[in-house]
Amino acid sequence: VYQKLNYYITMDRALIADLAEVAKDEALLQGVLMRIQEASNSSELVTYAPFTLFPTPVPKAVFLQALAVQTHYNTLVDRISQDPDFLQEALASTIEVDDFTARLFRIHQQILKEGRAQSIVLGLNRSDYMLDQAKDGSVSLKQVEINTIAASFGGLSSRTADVHRHVLKVAGKLEESRRILDNDPASGLARAVAKAWELYGSHRAAVMFLVEESQRNIFDQRYIESHLWKRNIPTIRKRFDNVSKTGSLDQDKKLFVDGREVAVVYFRNGYMPQNYVSEQTWDARLLMERSVAVKCPDISTHLAGTKKVQQVLARPGVLERFFPDQPGVVEQIRATFAGPLHSRHEGDKTVAMALAAPDQFVLKPQREGGGNNIYGAEICRVLQAAEGSSERTAYILMDKIQPAAVQNYLLRRDGPLEISNCLSELGVFGTYVRHGKDMVMNECAGHLLRTKSSEHSDGGVAAGVAVLDNPLLV
Amino acid sequence: VYQKLNYYITMDRALIADLAEVAKDEALLQGVLMRIQEASNSSELVTYAPFTLFPTPVPKAVFLQALAVQTHYNTLVDRISQDPDFLQEALASTIEVDDFTARLFRIHQQILKEGRAQSIVLGLNRSDYMLDQAKDGSVSLKQVEINTIAASFGGLSSRTADVHRHVLKVAGKLEESRRILDNDPASGLARAVAKAWELYGSHRAAVMFLVEESQRNIFDQRYIESHLWKRNIPTIRKRFDNVSKTGSLDQDKKLFVDGREVAVVYFRNGYMPQNYVSEQTWDARLLMERSVAVKCPDISTHLAGTKKVQQVLARPGVLERFFPDQPGVVEQIRATFAGPLHSRHEGDKTVAMALAAPDQFVLKPQREGGGNNIYGAEICRVLQAAEGSSERTAYILMDKIQPAAVQNYLLRRDGPLEISNCLSELGVFGTYVRHGKDMVMNECAGHLLRTKSSEHSDGGVAAGVAVLDNPLLV
Repeated sequence: VYQKLNYYITMDRALIADLAEVAKDEALLQGVLMRIQEASNSSELVTYAPFTLFPTPVPKAVFLQALAVQTHYNTLVDRISQDPDFLQEALASTIEVDDFTARLFRIHQQILKEGRAQSIVLGLNRSDYMLDQAKDGSVSLKQVEINTIAASFGGLSSRTADVHRHVLKVAGKLEESRRILDNDPASGLARAVAKAWELYGSHRAAVMFLVEESQRNIFDQRYIESHLWKRNIPTIRKRFDNVSKTGSLDQDKKLFVDGREVAVVYFRNGYMPQNYVSEQTWDARLLMERSVAVKCPDISTHLAGTKKVQQVLARPGVLERFFPDQPGVVEQIRATFAGPLHSRHEGDKTVAMALAAPDQFVLKPQREGGGNNIYGAEICRVLQAAEGSSERTAYILMDKIQPAAVQNYLLRRDGPLEISNCLSELGVFGTYVRHGKDMVMNECAGHLLRTKSSEHSDGGVAAGVAVLDNPLLV
Repeated sequence: VYQKLNYYITMDRALIADLAEVAKDEALLQGVLMRIQEASNSSELVTYAPFTLFPTPVPKAVFLQALAVQTHYNTLVDRISQDPDFLQEALASTIEVDDFTARLFRIHQQILKEGRAQSIVLGLNRSDYMLDQAKDGSVSLKQVEINTIAASFGGLSSRTADVHRHVLKVAGKLEESRRILDNDPASGLARAVAKAWELYGSHRAAVMFLVEESQRNIFDQRYIESHLWKRNIPTIRKRFDNVSKTGSLDQDKKLFVDGREVAVVYFRNGYMPQNYVSEQTWDARLLMERSVAVKCPDISTHLAGTKKVQQVLARPGVLERFFPDQPGVVEQIRATFAGPLHSRHEGDKTVAMALAAPDQFVLKPQREGGGNNIYGAEICRVLQAAEGSSERTAYILMDKIQPAAVQNYLLRRDGPLEISNCLSELGVFGTYVRHGKDMVMNECAGHLLRTKSSEHSDGGVAAGVAVLDNPLLV
């Protein structure tokens, strides 16, 4: 099914070079931008966000399957976040070995003790999949992870469809250009934020984007800000240290930062240990969690997205806990799990299996953000070093998904123009807003395809490894 | 009328700095881009095209007047281009002293002798005005020039309205943000090119953008290319030397460049002497003019846009020659002329006037493109140096328009954030397509406001002096 679309393999070098120039200019025109590494907090010089020259063929059936399951994943994440017993049980062993999860969990417990100040819940998540290819050629969806905090590229991916359509037209592939779907996660994410802001109910209160120190990927966020301003919803951008220095709660637990009331805190930071540089950072997170500002995500939704929870969900009977009367939903979600091995990874037997055939596994630390996964011989080294200690439970062992490689050109600033064997990862954006017991919005907001050279085993777009792409439905 | 909108004069420094960051990112998101001077033929690093932080107040009446007269200017330019006697008479004295105009005129004469191969005419022009403020405060439109070749910024100006709307919203000026009109010259220009391409009638023939060596302002053109590709009209970008080396006419005078049939030549180069670096360049221009490709503009329309023609049009009775039965149209066009002095500038008396009060005049060489005008004491130096020689007629002397200065911040890559006294120039895009005797399209396609510090007497956006702006109608 892929072969017939590998039309570009036969294109000559000069045509490919021309198309690459056309593609870069179109990406820039469409706003598929990044700041440069050398000046990540300046917009004086920018470049195109890295992307593929051509879209990547994706079977329509699995693509639609990923979209269809998204609202169920939203519900699942939200229900987990409201189940303190489950979270405690699932995370117990992780907390013992992983300080980051332990600190998040401590905030979670304190909020439970005090009682949640805000009954409006805003979820913007992204469920990521690889397309596993069986030996018979059949392709199936395998979930890699679900991001419940700081899921990125909803902005930039809203602008890439037109880039690939243009490239295909210029390449004389009009029919193929029609197989690229419209995609606008930025507007979907903004719609959910706007709904939460409205429910909060104060026209002068702002949506606060909690941003990183280094803001190289700022344009991805600016799209959502622009959509909010179009709805006359004010946005501000603040860092953890701004909250530390100027943040406070009034007697009604309203959050004020720099003198401005905050209706919604949208975390685009705070997802990995390195983001918490000091005790003041943790204090700032706690301050926001205790406030009546709507948190996206709140602390328990953040925990619901950990890899350990993902692993526990794969155990028999666990999904049924969250969908007791909906076997159809359980089946739909379970069909996207990476495999039954999930539930057997903790014992010595599993470790022995991994040591015997490390290429069939991936070892994931209990942390969020890309670039931390362990592959191949490195798996043996890590597992052996941790032998006999509880250190081993700081990792999750999973089946390595074996996607089909497709040839493409990865366009990066000043990068070489060469054909690469590539692997892709499909992300689906989900948004929901709950007000007390009422789910007032639950939507699939669009998709993201990221592609990387198969030589690189791990890493995301922001890390410079994966690049933006589009599915070409086949 | 301007004072009440100078709200930003009172804004504090920190707010202005925040707004400048927001404005630059929004400009980048919207695709208001330029390549950088250091690498004008590379899209690896780009920056925002320079623009004003705030839009500039423009009285609604004169703005609408400029839009309303545009289709008449289109007709005027087109009728002049079909009047060889008029062109010969008007340009006779210029041809004697200006080699560039003389060479253009020679091509024009050769085409007349051979007979025009193509009866489809495509005009994309831009009429530029300053807003002259009388001592009583009344504001009137004064035409600076009409560009019938390579009129630029139709692309970028299509994306600036949303930038200023966003800035005003973030500044808390919601009501003001609604006074910025939608503007989409790129789509209007593309519509006219598309019409000419359709009339040419060959699906495989391309629209050829004839581009400069240094393509810093490529994005302005890419917008029009994108619009054409959306209509499935192929575009190619070629330089004069590509045409010299690979261009040819077949027996039907069809133009082929690099093996590709060209339906429309869209000149974004060839408007000033420096563009013709060798005899081969002139040969290439002649080759294109002789072909059946639709030229935008053809050689006679190019000549119709010269400053000398503009000067002659201001003489009594001349407009009537082109609109014999339309006194209303004559009146509408004449109302935008810079003043009766136009017709008296050639005699010694006029020179004496200019020497006596040089600050009230501008001396314009007979060349196209910005940055060549002469002001103040330099006028005296040039006129005295040319005394007694026919050299003087190589210049056009015009009244200097005295627009009101408005304060604003000019945002340029790595430029200082400081308030400047600014002057603005309003451009209006006009498009037309004529097929033989039938005017099949005649439209006003949008506008462009450019603003510069009043310290700089001359120079356009691409020259880095003027910056992109938007009218805020008052």
